[in-house]
Amino acid sequence: GTMTAALLEQYRERIRTELDRVVDFWLKYSHDKEQSGFFNCLGKDGKVYDELKYVWLQGRQVWMYSRLYRTMERFHRPEILDAAKSGAAFLQKFARVQASSGPGKCAFCLTRDGRAVKVQRTIFSECFYVMAMDELSRITQDKEMQADAESMMDRLIFWVQTDSSDLGRPQLPGDPPINSMAVPMMLLCLVDQLTEGRTDVAEKYKDLSGWCVEQILQHIQRDGKAILENVTLNGKELPGCQGRLQNPGHALEAGWFLLQYALKKEDAQLQKTAVDKFMEIPFHTGWDKQHGGLFYFLDVDGHCPTQLEWNMKLWWPHCEALIAYLMAYSHSREPLLLDRFKQIYDYTFRQKREMKNKEGKGK
Amino acid sequence: GTMTAALLEQYRERIRTELDRVVDFWLKYSHDKEQSGFFNCLGKDGKVYDELKYVWLQGRQVWMYSRLYRTMERFHRPEILDAAKSGAAFLQKFARVQASSGPGKCAFCLTRDGRAVKVQRTIFSECFYVMAMDELSRITQDKEMQADAESMMDRLIFWVQTDSSDLGRPQLPGDPPINSMAVPMMLLCLVDQLTEGRTDVAEKYKDLSGWCVEQILQHIQRDGKAILENVTLNGKELPGCQGRLQNPGHALEAGWFLLQYALKKEDAQLQKTAVDKFMEIPFHTGWDKQHGGLFYFLDVDGHCPTQLEWNMKLWWPHCEALIAYLMAYSHSREPLLLDRFKQIYDYTFRQKREMKNKEGKGK
Repeated sequence: GTMTAALLEQYRERIRTELDRVVDFWLKYSHDKEQSGFFNCLGKDGKVYDELKYVWLQGRQVWMYSRLYRTMERFHRPEILDAAKSGAAFLQKFARVQASSGPGKCAFCLTRDGRAVKVQRTIFSECFYVMAMDELSRITQDKEMQADAESMMDRLIFWVQTDSSDLGRPQLPGDPPINSMAVPMMLLCLVDQLTEGRTDVAEKYKDLSGWCVEQILQHIQRDGKAILENVTLNGKELPGCQGRLQNPGHALEAGWFLLQYALKKEDAQLQKTAVDKFMEIPFHTGWDKQHGGLFYFLDVDGHCPTQLEWNMKLWWPHCEALIAYLMAYSHSREPLLLDRFKQIYDYTFRQKREMKNKEGKGK
Repeated sequence: GTMTAALLEQYRERIRTELDRVVDFWLKYSHDKEQSGFFNCLGKDGKVYDELKYVWLQGRQVWMYSRLYRTMERFHRPEILDAAKSGAAFLQKFARVQASSGPGKCAFCLTRDGRAVKVQRTIFSECFYVMAMDELSRITQDKEMQADAESMMDRLIFWVQTDSSDLGRPQLPGDPPINSMAVPMMLLCLVDQLTEGRTDVAEKYKDLSGWCVEQILQHIQRDGKAILENVTLNGKELPGCQGRLQNPGHALEAGWFLLQYALKKEDAQLQKTAVDKFMEIPFHTGWDKQHGGLFYFLDVDGHCPTQLEWNMKLWWPHCEALIAYLMAYSHSREPLLLDRFKQIYDYTFRQKREMKNKEGKGK
């Protein structure tokens, strides 16, 4: 009814204000005007407390600036496009580490002037590289940049589906390959990015998106009552802590990507699975009943996770959960889903206010 | 006076009870009677919740059983020696990962039946291997095992001082070698282990222990007011978060090893440095004034450390701090040092009691 509409408008208004504030902050403080690229480690006062440049974050900032510029009028400003272009040039010049066979993996982290500090033996730096290049190329119509994104994507697919030895992880007899939810989840997100409005690309990656969905669904375990982060390659529970690990934020993020895919495909069954299994289960198991907020990690049998940071409430899974539930609500108009959104929103913004109050007192 | 003596006797009695309880627990629940080696992941009820065997912990358990057997009459029991022998055999059979050039690095973690799960690109699994083999060989007079410990030690020294490429970490242009306190600290501890009562071995590693002390002392920074975890190879502060990182528990552990070395050498100056710099500084900077306990990580300029687990109070640094201060007190009889011991002890055991009370209520 009108009351719900008014409430949603209120939330939209608050989130709009936050978005403006955040974009202003990063525009003002994060640009490295001397060496290009973005500073990632900023204090609340905008001061750079570390000059390292993380490739995930460089890629995300290029993507975010480009997406805002392309899709929202108030961000369609030359300074935003220029910053995206400069960040992408920095990435193209420095992110890929030279291997004997030519430019290889992306580094995880670079010095201020672009020298590799660390290379992870996973695929995620490359994923954010793809997102950055694809999104910017949609504005500039730069075909070479689009091809750069696609060729990195094709390398990712090769590593995941055919041969991972270039990632540099030695094959050890006690560490057989597993299905880790992060991998198909990220690839599904990339397919969504690359195929928007492009039927030829969508055709090219059609099998891949089906494969990703299938791989993600394998993480529904324990008679449909749990989402487990790691399963065997044929979708069975793994032994020990690794097998019992739940990452509620990841599950909710997977729910968001699955729902997006299901809506595009008009697949009502998958839509329902995305909400019931990948949002409602992690919300119920992952929410701290005593203090509120989503835990970072949990063990499905209630043991203490071995990750020391398991009980932290991190900001980004809460933002992803907000997106997931708002998307779910906007397509079903199911009041329960709006309630979830409100609960997560209120918790997240209460924490933010309390932190601000504490700071005020400290000064 | 007598009051202090009575108080110390009281602490000794409580710690003795704890030690008995802990040894009984691990003797009862951790031994893998089928595949040998020790289970490391035990619930409070003794149940194995993960079968992985961590090489650090296998090595420590062999060392601990052997040291207890050798030095304390009430632990001079055949079952303890047998368990140490069986754990050492498991390590010798499985810990070293086969490389093209013969047995190479130790794995970080093994499956229950000894297959390598993960190999870290650091030296610490190997350090605990050395400690285990050396300590057990002192009981059994097994010359081959002693030689195994020494040859692993010599490989460690080669990796640290000459060529680290066998550790498998690619040389990256933005990641020059640094002096990380953990390395000279661990090597100094190993020298102490290997040289006890052996003048020939002490002679062999004489230069190394001097080098370790020098490397550790380079971590005194900021005009003598801070102990920083990472410094450049010539003892200067590194830029960014890495350079500002403090690990109070590590610094206190280094204080313990330095003090032990200084006492053996009868070096009063170094004894004072160990206490004033490596105990008092981390105690003052690392202690949580509000809730008590030692933080895991801190930034010397007060920024939030990037490690998510920075504010945890972990049990082992508290135990190491207790050892350091008790050792310092027992040689100086300085009442302040006993006060520190009491403060850390009371915090640690209060936490333990509170956890026990909570469990009681939960049942």
